[in-house]
Amino acid sequence: MDAGLPRRSDQIFDAALTLLAEGGYQRLTVEGIAERSGVHKTTLYRWWPSKDALLGRALVESRLLDVEMPDTGTLRGDLEHLVGSAVRLLTAPATAPVIAAVLAGAGEHPALAGHARAFFADRLGRERAVVDRAVARGELPPDVDAMLLFDLLGGAVWVRVLLRRLPPDPDTPARVVRAVLHGLSA
Amino acid sequence: MDAGLPRRSDQIFDAALTLLAEGGYQRLTVEGIAERSGVHKTTLYRWWPSKDALLGRALVESRLLDVEMPDTGTLRGDLEHLVGSAVRLLTAPATAPVIAAVLAGAGEHPALAGHARAFFADRLGRERAVVDRAVARGELPPDVDAMLLFDLLGGAVWVRVLLRRLPPDPDTPARVVRAVLHGLSA
Repeated sequence: MDAGLPRRSDQIFDAALTLLAEGGYQRLTVEGIAERSGVHKTTLYRWWPSKDALLGRALVESRLLDVEMPDTGTLRGDLEHLVGSAVRLLTAPATAPVIAAVLAGAGEHPALAGHARAFFADRLGRERAVVDRAVARGELPPDVDAMLLFDLLGGAVWVRVLLRRLPPDPDTPARVVRAVLHGLSA
Repeated sequence: MDAGLPRRSDQIFDAALTLLAEGGYQRLTVEGIAERSGVHKTTLYRWWPSKDALLGRALVESRLLDVEMPDTGTLRGDLEHLVGSAVRLLTAPATAPVIAAVLAGAGEHPALAGHARAFFADRLGRERAVVDRAVARGELPPDVDAMLLFDLLGGAVWVRVLLRRLPPDPDTPARVVRAVLHGLSA
């Protein structure tokens, strides 16, 4: 167990994210998380001084939003895996409402926008291992812009699913990755 | 003047989008739009039977969110122009809150999600002219996936500005377009 997290942190984080999805940021309280998770609120306050401290940690640490960092042996394989994970997070019934709630509240609540920013920064930090291995294999140039790489991959899925409201095809990950690695020009 | 729109449609659409940005979808009413625009509500109801009919039209037709379709003579020039326009829409004080309000409400209100979908479909329809000219010039293959092209370009800006909350660099359009046309691989 991670020494920096209390026992039953999985239940606590699940409760926080589910309540966020159900009621939005404004109605989320430490008391509500205590009730939903079955962990006493004094325990929660011992670990996190506020709902924002708890929620920020939940977004980064929860198993619900966790994405396995792949090591398939090729850049293409690793990136297709990551794009597939993004599609699942944005469409699965357990996770899509959490993401929608973060998006819905981030404009109005700077703390929530900060949590979203921290979430994406954490992801990018972990995704860099994929880029570093690809550079070592000669698949990417050493000066590649890793943030741009992941913004293109994630953004394409994001626009299709959340803005166009189109279902991703099974070959979406392969097509997106091919485009970002090799370009669409003639 | 467009025969399909009433006089003062610009003021009406501006009022609708500004009220959406200020108070969110739920509090938007035809009465509120009438008051803000100075156009009598019976006139508004003569043109649009509901707030959704009016709002859907406002998102697609308003000068506020309008983007000039470029014809610079090169695909790169046209796309950099479009990405620059997207950056401005997502960051300018007059438009960023409108987009934030659409995002915030789309998860909860299917009608608003439908308006967003229609907005992006309309944009894609107009952007196709850029792709058609590039295919004719031999800059893009005839079977290019135009939707993927614009999802990559728009998505990268979207993730950077709205999710990472990072300011776009002045060279963001050029870097995004270069990556999408020629790829990031070594």
